[in-house]
Amino acid sequence: MSRTILLYSGTFTDVLFAELAPRAGEWGYQGLELCCWGDHFEVQRALSEDDYCAKKLDLLSRLDLSAPVISAHKVSQAVGDRVDARHQAILPDYVWGDGQPPEVSQRAAEEMMATVRAAQKLGAAVVAGFSGSTLWSFVGGYPAPTREILAAGFQDFARLWNPILDVCRDCGIRYALEVHPGQIAFDLYSAEMALDALHGREDFGFLFDPSHLHWQGIDPAEFLRHFPDRIYHVHIKDAVLNLNGRNGLLGSYLPSGDPRRGYEFRSPGHGGIDWEAVIRALNDIGYNGPLSVEWKDSGMNRDFGAEDACRFVKRLDFEPAPPEY
Amino acid sequence: MSRTILLYSGTFTDVLFAELAPRAGEWGYQGLELCCWGDHFEVQRALSEDDYCAKKLDLLSRLDLSAPVISAHKVSQAVGDRVDARHQAILPDYVWGDGQPPEVSQRAAEEMMATVRAAQKLGAAVVAGFSGSTLWSFVGGYPAPTREILAAGFQDFARLWNPILDVCRDCGIRYALEVHPGQIAFDLYSAEMALDALHGREDFGFLFDPSHLHWQGIDPAEFLRHFPDRIYHVHIKDAVLNLNGRNGLLGSYLPSGDPRRGYEFRSPGHGGIDWEAVIRALNDIGYNGPLSVEWKDSGMNRDFGAEDACRFVKRLDFEPAPPEY
Amino acid sequence: MSRTILLYSGTFTDVLFAELAPRAGEWGYQGLELCCWGDHFEVQRALSEDDYCAKKLDLLSRLDLSAPVISAHKVSQAVGDRVDARHQAILPDYVWGDGQPPEVSQRAAEEMMATVRAAQKLGAAVVAGFSGSTLWSFVGGYPAPTREILAAGFQDFARLWNPILDVCRDCGIRYALEVHPGQIAFDLYSAEMALDALHGREDFGFLFDPSHLHWQGIDPAEFLRHFPDRIYHVHIKDAVLNLNGRNGLLGSYLPSGDPRRGYEFRSPGHGGIDWEAVIRALNDIGYNGPLSVEWKDSGMNRDFGAEDACRFVKRLDFEPAPPEY
Amino acid sequence: MSRTILLYSGTFTDVLFAELAPRAGEWGYQGLELCCWGDHFEVQRALSEDDYCAKKLDLLSRLDLSAPVISAHKVSQAVGDRVDARHQAILPDYVWGDGQPPEVSQRAAEEMMATVRAAQKLGAAVVAGFSGSTLWSFVGGYPAPTREILAAGFQDFARLWNPILDVCRDCGIRYALEVHPGQIAFDLYSAEMALDALHGREDFGFLFDPSHLHWQGIDPAEFLRHFPDRIYHVHIKDAVLNLNGRNGLLGSYLPSGDPRRGYEFRSPGHGGIDWEAVIRALNDIGYNGPLSVEWKDSGMNRDFGAEDACRFVKRLDFEPAPPEY
Amino acid sequence: MSRTILLYSGTFTDVLFAELAPRAGEWGYQGLELCCWGDHFEVQRALSEDDYCAKKLDLLSRLDLSAPVISAHKVSQAVGDRVDARHQAILPDYVWGDGQPPEVSQRAAEEMMATVRAAQKLGAAVVAGFSGSTLWSFVGGYPAPTREILAAGFQDFARLWNPILDVCRDCGIRYALEVHPGQIAFDLYSAEMALDALHGREDFGFLFDPSHLHWQGIDPAEFLRHFPDRIYHVHIKDAVLNLNGRNGLLGSYLPSGDPRRGYEFRSPGHGGIDWEAVIRALNDIGYNGPLSVEWKDSGMNRDFGAEDACRFVKRLDFEPAPPEY
Amino acid sequence: MSRTILLYSGTFTDVLFAELAPRAGEWGYQGLELCCWGDHFEVQRALSEDDYCAKKLDLLSRLDLSAPVISAHKVSQAVGDRVDARHQAILPDYVWGDGQPPEVSQRAAEEMMATVRAAQKLGAAVVAGFSGSTLWSFVGGYPAPTREILAAGFQDFARLWNPILDVCRDCGIRYALEVHPGQIAFDLYSAEMALDALHGREDFGFLFDPSHLHWQGIDPAEFLRHFPDRIYHVHIKDAVLNLNGRNGLLGSYLPSGDPRRGYEFRSPGHGGIDWEAVIRALNDIGYNGPLSVEWKDSGMNRDFGAEDACRFVKRLDFEPAPPEY
Repeated sequence: MSRTILLYSGTFTDVLFAELAPRAGEWGYQGLELCCWGDHFEVQRALSEDDYCAKKLDLLSRLDLSAPVISAHKVSQAVGDRVDARHQAILPDYVWGDGQPPEVSQRAAEEMMATVRAAQKLGAAVVAGFSGSTLWSFVGGYPAPTREILAAGFQDFARLWNPILDVCRDCGIRYALEVHPGQIAFDLYSAEMALDALHGREDFGFLFDPSHLHWQGIDPAEFLRHFPDRIYHVHIKDAVLNLNGRNGLLGSYLPSGDPRRGYEFRSPGHGGIDWEAVIRALNDIGYNGPLSVEWKDSGMNRDFGAEDACRFVKRLDFEPAPPEY
Repeated sequence: MSRTILLYSGTFTDVLFAELAPRAGEWGYQGLELCCWGDHFEVQRALSEDDYCAKKLDLLSRLDLSAPVISAHKVSQAVGDRVDARHQAILPDYVWGDGQPPEVSQRAAEEMMATVRAAQKLGAAVVAGFSGSTLWSFVGGYPAPTREILAAGFQDFARLWNPILDVCRDCGIRYALEVHPGQIAFDLYSAEMALDALHGREDFGFLFDPSHLHWQGIDPAEFLRHFPDRIYHVHIKDAVLNLNGRNGLLGSYLPSGDPRRGYEFRSPGHGGIDWEAVIRALNDIGYNGPLSVEWKDSGMNRDFGAEDACRFVKRLDFEPAPPEY
Repeated sequence: MSRTILLYSGTFTDVLFAELAPRAGEWGYQGLELCCWGDHFEVQRALSEDDYCAKKLDLLSRLDLSAPVISAHKVSQAVGDRVDARHQAILPDYVWGDGQPPEVSQRAAEEMMATVRAAQKLGAAVVAGFSGSTLWSFVGGYPAPTREILAAGFQDFARLWNPILDVCRDCGIRYALEVHPGQIAFDLYSAEMALDALHGREDFGFLFDPSHLHWQGIDPAEFLRHFPDRIYHVHIKDAVLNLNGRNGLLGSYLPSGDPRRGYEFRSPGHGGIDWEAVIRALNDIGYNGPLSVEWKDSGMNRDFGAEDACRFVKRLDFEPAPPEY
Repeated sequence: MSRTILLYSGTFTDVLFAELAPRAGEWGYQGLELCCWGDHFEVQRALSEDDYCAKKLDLLSRLDLSAPVISAHKVSQAVGDRVDARHQAILPDYVWGDGQPPEVSQRAAEEMMATVRAAQKLGAAVVAGFSGSTLWSFVGGYPAPTREILAAGFQDFARLWNPILDVCRDCGIRYALEVHPGQIAFDLYSAEMALDALHGREDFGFLFDPSHLHWQGIDPAEFLRHFPDRIYHVHIKDAVLNLNGRNGLLGSYLPSGDPRRGYEFRSPGHGGIDWEAVIRALNDIGYNGPLSVEWKDSGMNRDFGAEDACRFVKRLDFEPAPPEY
Repeated sequence: MSRTILLYSGTFTDVLFAELAPRAGEWGYQGLELCCWGDHFEVQRALSEDDYCAKKLDLLSRLDLSAPVISAHKVSQAVGDRVDARHQAILPDYVWGDGQPPEVSQRAAEEMMATVRAAQKLGAAVVAGFSGSTLWSFVGGYPAPTREILAAGFQDFARLWNPILDVCRDCGIRYALEVHPGQIAFDLYSAEMALDALHGREDFGFLFDPSHLHWQGIDPAEFLRHFPDRIYHVHIKDAVLNLNGRNGLLGSYLPSGDPRRGYEFRSPGHGGIDWEAVIRALNDIGYNGPLSVEWKDSGMNRDFGAEDACRFVKRLDFEPAPPEY
Repeated sequence: MSRTILLYSGTFTDVLFAELAPRAGEWGYQGLELCCWGDHFEVQRALSEDDYCAKKLDLLSRLDLSAPVISAHKVSQAVGDRVDARHQAILPDYVWGDGQPPEVSQRAAEEMMATVRAAQKLGAAVVAGFSGSTLWSFVGGYPAPTREILAAGFQDFARLWNPILDVCRDCGIRYALEVHPGQIAFDLYSAEMALDALHGREDFGFLFDPSHLHWQGIDPAEFLRHFPDRIYHVHIKDAVLNLNGRNGLLGSYLPSGDPRRGYEFRSPGHGGIDWEAVIRALNDIGYNGPLSVEWKDSGMNRDFGAEDACRFVKRLDFEPAPPEY
């Protein structure tokens, strides 16, 4: 479909934007999904400095690269989470502040609104990110939450995110929530519930990343066919199951790369995802947004992998039959 | 091995002890794993009333039933958890009190010590239960916890449970932690970490319930062979995977019985667990404690199922070869 | 659920009714699904002789057997088929007549109306059977039928069957179409199309026989959950796949029992069907009609098998949880 | 083996021969399997016009393309079928005529003889096609055909095809029947029966297309090894199973491309066929005829796919060991 | 088929015949496969003492037991093997003698002839055993044997066994070679070669024991269908694969019961063999000899298992359809 | 990891060294694993002729090829085997001599010491080969060897190989035993036992060839992770299972290429080995020696395959993450 192939910049925040952009181009990418940390896309500067966005776009344009999606995964996590010590590392100081949970979430929400406005200024169409969730710790745990507790969690989600989505609506930006463990939506039916909690407002859809569905036993193509008009962004990331009787899918607290884990993320094409089925489902539902490589593989050289992944996606993304076929 | 077959009473707390015990005997059970809620085993009465335990034992003895294991799952959960609104429903009023988290946990710890003493008074050998966990909400979620945060969680676990285990040691009781989502140990390697955090003290071992391992992709027999001398209690409960591409293993917040869930608990023999492998592994490691049916099946009549399960376990628990064979 | 267990009499038409009924009782059955050939249930005599039905019911009643379902598979096939030489063997002489196709089908339709009236006279609730189909030869074949040809086939089906279903409605009888190759409905989506062609009239539902779905790769439980209120009758019959690289699912024209066939029917419990899933789905959708053993197994003694099957179904049909559970 | 790679022209009949041939060459093909409809290969003109074949060959030769196989699938279908409305669309007017079945079949047989003669004139070695079948509607259906009915069907097949095969013999042409649903031979054992019905005459062999065997559960390599000297032509076409519990292998009357179907055809390498096993079996039996890409994929751009397929076959068709190895 | 169910006595040579026989009867067996070691069946006494066989038969008859098969596994192994230190433990002193290989084999051959005569005297129909093999050490090893070396091995086999089979012929006894690793025939094609080496003489057939085929990846039912008239005896013994990535099928020199082995023998019904398929294949080929339980399970009490196995075989051995069905 | 890719020369001994080396270079290889037969590497000449090694190295150097590993598979087999007629074909005349077993083994041991010294002279780091085994014929056979017999076999192994390994130690050469049927170590646990028998001396490690593990059911990556510091050399060779119910894993005495065998060796990438898992395990354990293609495929042209294999290994051997990642 000749979809635009992006590199998700969040894996490369140790590399300055001015250095990363040309490398991405050399590897074959047609654009970047810029993340809002490091110097890749600084929200406050974008809003306060007149030429910040123009300069970014200028550099990208000279490299023939686009930037249609902004990643706000880190700040967005704090909007709906019970904030704890882990969050300090993913938030700018001015959002973390003194770390008092309710205020942190409030400031995170404000930063998200700013992000949407900054994205508009850059000419992006989509802001992608997380939601955080007060319900996550109840998933699989004990005691099971009551219906009332679950309902309250979804109401919180709607209450916190509707104002941000209102800004999206005003700016002509769509928010793509990554369906991901730790978020309000982490599988097919929870995604359905999240959509219902927002009464299906069109500003809100999903970032589809099959790697998070695969290890849960969900067929990524079924997810796509279930939400044909709510796929607002796509991450290309692979995953592999390592089950040998001792490994478990919940991962035993082990870090990525430890062979005792039950699953691992992989450079695309090096894992277990049925990409042929994914691309055909994307074709069938008419998704024509970008394909963004979120490169993650604890066992491969990053630069080698980023280039390998771009080639992989180009081979994968074949032309579908014309609609009239 | 002619192991004692128990009925876990926690599934029947709507039935009074005096009524449940004879029914269990008629269904073929040889004893009860008494839970510490309802009137099955009331910890404070057991300690304060001189004849409470004697009366229980007398009734059981007339029915030719034993009570070698006490279940303290509900109170034990609050010891190590971040206490929230869900916990009120599982705690006695005098433990919940005003619901201020740190004090609730403290009172739960004291109740656990009382439980151990009451179990000793009843002549039980094992108290079974949970641990709670401050780390649970980090499992699978985002942001990933640092090594330091994980280490702190295990230290908390040890700090909170060592005093209770000291009482176990003094009373000649062993604590069997159910390896279960929501607890400090939920799979093979996290169980290893929990044991390490306690420096392998012998008062502490595991309640093995294969239903919680099965859906995580772990082979229950591998778990048994990995901890040959730390299996202190066994629950017989089955589980089935319902994966069809849309269902996910994390369960989508759905209650038991909803066909959209990725797995369900089942009456033993009606699910996917390889019981032949489980019983052979129990034989190989020389486990000779009781087998306790925790009956749970949203699609089967409870009384029918409890009797069916007892018959199933009797067929299953064949005699192993003598050691010299 | 203590559903009534019937023996489908069509496998025993070499045995007189008066002899079969007591044997069925001895084997443990609680009733018969009487077929309309041989002397099991003679439609014209039932209608014309005053005491025909009463005598049948009297004998059954003395044996404590019921007859809630009438099988009209043979005559019903001719209603919607392109009649050819094969049909002579399955039709009474007065329906076959001179074998001219259009008239044969017309007489078959009239016989079906008579059958419904006779079933009412016997006090049955369901007539079970086939439909025939002018579309069958196009399935899988070449050239593929156009949409118009398919639409015409469904219109024929509705035109031919609506008058028979009108008689059903008048008599308080439900027609259960067996979803089966050779019929208008042979899998899940074709069953949906057949229901649509009749505008979902309630006189019409399905005879669920999982053996015909299994070899097509369809999960029988998915079929049940897809049509929760249209399961009007159930056949218990098993099937096994024999694939070894040379065998094919279309069966190579080979008769039952030839090991070169890709699949075979089997006595229930001796094949590949997941009966646990079937019975749970029947429980979940609230089916409380009879379970009728259609015994077919080319490798087993028929009398042995009929008794073995009855025992199997009794073990299988466990009590579900009460609705309020 | 450096087998000749052909493009089956029947997928491109909307493209004129003069335009298709150079495109095939550009995509990498070494020849065309010309179909007898559209202007690709017009049988009557080939026979009646002196220079028709010469001109075709001249154009092909200038493009360095060969045409060793003629496809007569459409007309051949009518030879042995019960002709109905579907056939009009696949027959030339002069064969369809007034559409009276027996005469249509007769004219189709004559056209097949003409086709063989025309193929000889073009210098082709093989005519490939179908057979039609009066037995097809009995496959899987009800009532099952008797042995006599089956025997009669095979006799019909022999009676109708022997005269055509006599022409083949006289012209030095071999007929390759595609083993395909809807034909007298659709799987391994029915192919054996068809060969027997013709007493194994050498003019008659098979067009091997693994896509039609795969979904029936047959291992294509077993088919090849079973008929080592009767593989007269090979189609390269892939297929994929889409089973998810609801989909069925008989396809529910649904058109290609509908995700509810149980299987789909695919561009080679994009489906489930084990091509490595196919090519090794072809090597082992010494097949050295062409490999003809019958391109069919409802989810891929046709031109892209035709080129992709040619590359795929070139990679696939590795050199076998020399016989003496 | 109501085949006779035997207990193979070789697993119980620590129990005297006079004690074993009544226990076998109590466990439900209908006869014994007597082994020629311990006091179960002493070949030289049977030949030299007039009433030895009569007394055995008398005791068996009083218990309603038969003895239709004699097991000579131990001595027969030495006939065709390269004799080494291992063989001393399995041979009577008068066969082992001074342990010089060629003479040991010669004496073993003579003992086999004596065994056949003794079996005749007892009224048995079959002698079952091994062959030994000079080729075994070449299987899977290095350097690969040449065709000439293999041919010489089969010639040795024929040369050594033909004289013994001549005695079989004279005595009306059939020899059933157990297809088993370590023997000249250990899988389907090597069994074919062994039969060919003997020019298919009818005195020679196979003892079918599916446990030895299962772990090699062979379908036991295929073996039966391949040799429909050469199945002279059947052992009922189960096996299970324990593959977890580290275990291997060649067994790492480990003794039975070690969980690191790749497979284990099991009490029938407790392993991985598809017994339904086995019994149907036995029915289809018309085998009507005995089914002999060779009980072996390192994880189960032997007496419990022997009784459990007998019940299992009775359930398994259902009545087939009559031939005319 | 940019590991050196070698071609194992033993598959090409019909080609002279001077001809093979440039071809290997053209195919893309970076070096040769020279075998000690044919003229590839002549041990006695290497030791006795001053410039033999220098000339070899000179030619290799001009082609930019290295020779870091010497293969002594043939002679090494005779060191620990019971020598028989098969061995004559794999030994030089001066080692075979008069073929008396004990002296042959002794001469083979001396030749191995010479080989180590010659390898040192060539500048190689590793000698790769077999061990032979007196225990091989007991594997899987009958009677099972006692513990004492097994222990004696391992003692023999140590007694015979320690002197050779002493020469390795003195020469700075490591011996890589190929884990392979027919050798003392053929799977994971037998490799462990072999290492133990040598008290883990560092001169001794393994040649890892996954093709020999795959068909035994062992996961090659588990082998690598089990012996992280003992992988001294790696062969790249693929294998495929051909199980269809009749084929068996022990191979029925059939030669390579016969489709009745249960498994076959294949050109890398054309079989069933999970190479992605192999390369990641090699990366994880830090193996940085060469990858040596032992090309073997009975169904592919050897020259085509050798070049194809080299390309395959280059694609496969991706750069791992740096250790600090």
